Amino acid sequence: EYSLEATVEKKIKEFLNSPEYKPPAVAMKISCTSVKQSGKFASCPHGMSVTGCACGYGCGSWDIRQETTCHCQCPGMDWTAARCCQVA
Amino acid sequence: EYSLEATVEKKIKEFLNSPEYKPPAVAMKISCTSVKQSGKFASCPHGMSVTGCACGYGCGSWDIRQETTCHCQCPGMDWTAARCCQVA
Amino acid sequence: EYSLEATVEKKIKEFLNSPEYKPPAVAMKISCTSVKQSGKFASCPHGMSVTGCACGYGCGSWDIRQETTCHCQCPGMDWTAARCCQVA
Repeated sequence: EYSLEATVEKKIKEFLNSPEYKPPAVAMKISCTSVKQSGKFASCPHGMSVTGCACGYGCGSWDIRQETTCHCQCPGMDWTAARCCQVA
Repeated sequence: EYSLEATVEKKIKEFLNSPEYKPPAVAMKISCTSVKQSGKFASCPHGMSVTGCACGYGCGSWDIRQETTCHCQCPGMDWTAARCCQVA
Repeated sequence: EYSLEATVEKKIKEFLNSPEYKPPAVAMKISCTSVKQSGKFASCPHGMSVTGCACGYGCGSWDIRQETTCHCQCPGMDWTAARCCQVA
């Protein structure tokens, strides 16, 4: 019995690590949402990444603070929006 | 013979569900493309997600409509571009 | 012994290709970084994709050149930033 179990386990590992084994395709999708806040900052929810920012008054100058926060740079920004994405 | 098959099946399931089994790394890549349209809207192809938008006349104010469409907000927009991404 | 090995291998393949087998969830995350360069171009590192661009002087008009480079279109651009993402 022991020899059988050992053989089975060895075989499994060999097969799974062989090029012959093709793991099932994992259907992954990028899922995005927008977060709009008043003022010059907007932050993505935990677990999401900022892929871009939009700003009030037509402003296209922005940078990312602390990985997840959009900062719109023009003076007197009334709103900032972060585009936030994750794989799901 | 039945007992053998049953043992083999049990072993396989145990192993695949154990922390010892490391699934092969799936090489996934973000693939993006741009869609530019005249006017104030631009839409991503089915299956892709909008990660950001660009607008004519230097405008940086935009929002996303119906999940996949960029809307540039400044008056008189001559073109709108959507940045569209997927995992592949 | 040969018959045992063959049976084991056949069983493994059958199971892994059956709907009964659920591959372990692969925890994937979008990881992004910003690249800011002086002038009107900014390029993402190899292996990353551009998801959006930011420009100096409040400019929000940009396009992507050669898949990985942000091009800010307004005259006299002093800086350009690319938002670069990958799945990891």
